[in-house]
Amino acid sequence: MIRQSKKFLKIIPLGGLGEVGRNMTLFEWEGKILIVDMGLRMPEEDMPGVDYLVPNTEYLKGRAKDILGVVFTHGHYDHIGAIPYLLGRIWRPNLPIFASPLTRGIILKRQEDFPEQPVLKIYQVYDKSRIQLGPFRIEFVRMNHNIPDNLGLFIESPVGNIFHTSDFKFDKTPVNDLPTDFERLRSIASRKILLLMSDSTDAEEEGHSLSEKKILKNLEEIFKASKGRIIVATFSSLINRIQQIISLSEKYHRRVCLEGYSMRGNVEMCRVLGYIKARKGTFISSRQIERFSPSQITILGTGAQGESEAVLMRIALKEHPYIKIRKGDSVVFSSSVIPGNERTVQIMKDEILKQGARVFHYKMMDIHAGGHAKAEELKKMIRIMKPKFFLPIHGQYSMLVAHSQLAQEAGMKDKNIVVAENGDIINLSPRKIYLEKKKVPANYIMIDGLGVGDVGQVVLRDRQMLAKDGMFVIIVVVDKETGKVRTSPDIISRGFVYLRESKRMLMETRKKTIAIVERATGSGRAVNWSYIKDEIRNKIGKFLFQKTQRRPMVLPVVIEV
Amino acid sequence: MIRQSKKFLKIIPLGGLGEVGRNMTLFEWEGKILIVDMGLRMPEEDMPGVDYLVPNTEYLKGRAKDILGVVFTHGHYDHIGAIPYLLGRIWRPNLPIFASPLTRGIILKRQEDFPEQPVLKIYQVYDKSRIQLGPFRIEFVRMNHNIPDNLGLFIESPVGNIFHTSDFKFDKTPVNDLPTDFERLRSIASRKILLLMSDSTDAEEEGHSLSEKKILKNLEEIFKASKGRIIVATFSSLINRIQQIISLSEKYHRRVCLEGYSMRGNVEMCRVLGYIKARKGTFISSRQIERFSPSQITILGTGAQGESEAVLMRIALKEHPYIKIRKGDSVVFSSSVIPGNERTVQIMKDEILKQGARVFHYKMMDIHAGGHAKAEELKKMIRIMKPKFFLPIHGQYSMLVAHSQLAQEAGMKDKNIVVAENGDIINLSPRKIYLEKKKVPANYIMIDGLGVGDVGQVVLRDRQMLAKDGMFVIIVVVDKETGKVRTSPDIISRGFVYLRESKRMLMETRKKTIAIVERATGSGRAVNWSYIKDEIRNKIGKFLFQKTQRRPMVLPVVIEV
Repeated sequence: MIRQSKKFLKIIPLGGLGEVGRNMTLFEWEGKILIVDMGLRMPEEDMPGVDYLVPNTEYLKGRAKDILGVVFTHGHYDHIGAIPYLLGRIWRPNLPIFASPLTRGIILKRQEDFPEQPVLKIYQVYDKSRIQLGPFRIEFVRMNHNIPDNLGLFIESPVGNIFHTSDFKFDKTPVNDLPTDFERLRSIASRKILLLMSDSTDAEEEGHSLSEKKILKNLEEIFKASKGRIIVATFSSLINRIQQIISLSEKYHRRVCLEGYSMRGNVEMCRVLGYIKARKGTFISSRQIERFSPSQITILGTGAQGESEAVLMRIALKEHPYIKIRKGDSVVFSSSVIPGNERTVQIMKDEILKQGARVFHYKMMDIHAGGHAKAEELKKMIRIMKPKFFLPIHGQYSMLVAHSQLAQEAGMKDKNIVVAENGDIINLSPRKIYLEKKKVPANYIMIDGLGVGDVGQVVLRDRQMLAKDGMFVIIVVVDKETGKVRTSPDIISRGFVYLRESKRMLMETRKKTIAIVERATGSGRAVNWSYIKDEIRNKIGKFLFQKTQRRPMVLPVVIEV
Repeated sequence: MIRQSKKFLKIIPLGGLGEVGRNMTLFEWEGKILIVDMGLRMPEEDMPGVDYLVPNTEYLKGRAKDILGVVFTHGHYDHIGAIPYLLGRIWRPNLPIFASPLTRGIILKRQEDFPEQPVLKIYQVYDKSRIQLGPFRIEFVRMNHNIPDNLGLFIESPVGNIFHTSDFKFDKTPVNDLPTDFERLRSIASRKILLLMSDSTDAEEEGHSLSEKKILKNLEEIFKASKGRIIVATFSSLINRIQQIISLSEKYHRRVCLEGYSMRGNVEMCRVLGYIKARKGTFISSRQIERFSPSQITILGTGAQGESEAVLMRIALKEHPYIKIRKGDSVVFSSSVIPGNERTVQIMKDEILKQGARVFHYKMMDIHAGGHAKAEELKKMIRIMKPKFFLPIHGQYSMLVAHSQLAQEAGMKDKNIVVAENGDIINLSPRKIYLEKKKVPANYIMIDGLGVGDVGQVVLRDRQMLAKDGMFVIIVVVDKETGKVRTSPDIISRGFVYLRESKRMLMETRKKTIAIVERATGSGRAVNWSYIKDEIRNKIGKFLFQKTQRRPMVLPVVIEV
């Protein structure tokens, strides 16, 4: 084989580089491929109607037989969320899939929402488990994050050893999890790391991440001081935070009402698997809240990001059937705000304050910690691993650049660091790392409803245009024989102006349209309908712009009868 | 007069409370009204196509003769930007308008963009100027902000003295401005303050705001270290920052290329008025850049917020005719990021990094300071003024609440603090402050192109719907006599699916539409066209949803011939 003679391992990130989310990486040796993670991310603001973005798997088309297996690092959607959309494209019976017990539980739980999907067989792996997939020998390494059962990957490949950190932070005093095992990391490092692939999400943040213990302490202050109900909103995937709230509630004699489909589902699943512990009788339903005094109630739900369908927003907008904000309530936002959601969260916070509750959010006190190592931890990881080469992963381009600067501060040479983008082919040998000039397709695949990838640039551009100034359809019925317009043209417009207040402009538009059509049909030459349509589009577009300084999408329809 | 007997001064905020921007406040005594500021703000994310939001002035309708005058505190658009849209609605010849020289210059400069506006006569006022407007005696008080010539208002009213801080911060070492005159503030306080109205924008931020001197020092570090070009993006209204960049450029032997319409316009105007000082020969045009070595060039433009039309974005996207990013360039984002713009700024930053420049932004080092007092300064203001009553102004509801908590920490009683919203009528007498139950209209007035307020909830909802899943127009031509559909229905769809790949669905849609129409027209009864349209809308809507899980706006058109 030609490929073999090159003796390079190819690492191909299909997502997660130059963005936060959508993590998916291929490791290819002699045409055989190991896949790590299949994540999704939220769309950009200029992608109206799009539900999610997932990686482009065109490179894997027709290569199902070459895929050695899929390994998942942890159960967050930016690492597992694309499974229902992509797995069918690379599926073959007996495709080996590996995940820790909790990650597996979350994946299988989600699959229930996609009944047409194949039943997945997922092998459970644990800290220190070892598996062999073709030329790759993988040893799993427990790493701290804000979800339990997160596994880094020590990959022995034909060219050398690779350490993939997964998302991680160093936490000496975690809650509901073991502290970072630095001995273990050092022992791995002693086996020589050719390439370190490390989480860059917080590379632009100075210092160290907060320990979960500190968060717990601050949350406890709120529990101590609150005499009314405590309403906590967080991500349903923040299993450790959820455990903290449950434990505090039990300590302070509060029942816990879980609200929201994903919150209830995750807690239930985690209790079955043993990742969340709660006493019998701790949980109550929202209908039972009134049976207890406010000081005996914790409400735990989703929506700290201002998601429009989530519990907290429904409560804030007074749309929740049983739960209304009251004076004396304490509302705790225990999650950071994802860039882009600040405005919505602000509006929600304001609504809650207007209804008389106190609001606690992470900017006021440390009641949320991210799951990602900050600058000093990242340097520590590099110093422990002492890799020959370094590839920052997981993060916006500016984060990858910042991480590569940290690597230099930690003593690495610039030429041994590669800042790559999605679709790059990173060639790795014991002596060399470099990017191929060629790239594989790695653009966004948009999920909208049932469609995977059928919303493209054209549809999106139309949506943006429609959103901005609306649309304006003009329907002209023309008599085939006389070339005359039969009745006054119909106009359908939405999102442009309030039509009832624009009657004069519409009348003028009709007149102009008739003139355009009859000038052309009356010319004696053969009628060029597409020319007429262009004329209507241009001239009426200009006329409307002149009157309003807006550019609705003008769509002429000419019907001959 | 009945009003007089009540002996209450009415303070009516039409904007700026419960939001950032759109500041406008009325002071009414015996039916005579003083207006302070007329600002705009940017639209929310769910308001596509809307350019600005301005205050609702319905309360002033038909009352031009009652308006005593308009006073502007400073030249930022959130305080003056609504003038071209609203002044016409309250205009009368000889309406007295007052502003500091720079504020006046900015207002008049902007009016040039609105040639149909009346020529404004604006009286210049200065620190310590006094004017009398009906029952109100106003004394102007210089306050630090991030634009020069910012004036707080000491208003002697029939019920007592009011101090309105304008936007402010305390700066002991400002640049291009005098330090805060605490003696003056104390002397004003000694005249007894009945009501303090104070800027809440940074009430949620702990500690003190940064001094401009500190910013200058950090910017100078960049100038010292940079060997390539320095590209600085900031707001064109941050006059003091602009002066800093010009002075540093001169000190480090760099020419300054000003880029962007508003940047050039503001600098020119400020130089004429003496607010910006630059040596002869400092400025060059973008075409002259290549005549100098990179270490001799500063480019100063707008766009640190990622505004799509601004200079920095055009450079980042390689759309600028003369300026391209090169390795060695240093790009400085000297402005904070307005909530909602984070994603766009991140994308722009990443693009610039990919092109090889270094990026400096305010999160990495203090190269931007806001213009607003933080918690400790706000408490200091309250302690200096010792007001009887307190009304937090300028800010989201959460900021007003935080500011009212600060007032309590500074020793004020809860009952003497009023947290109000736009449209509230705040009644003030020497012994009492309270909100009337009645409110005046204070909803958003949306500016879109030439329209002021003609985009309402209906148009906006349509735009949101169109953005999400697009639209789907079905045109059916029906024979009047037979009731049969004449030709296969026309379908026009945009923003929904890629039509070429959905031929089968469209065919089925046409068939279903024909069936719906002919079932109704063939019934023998009189044809109910609006029923037929509803049927098409509902049934085709359902069908399309079932096929795609999307809900385009379905618009049926039935034409009888």
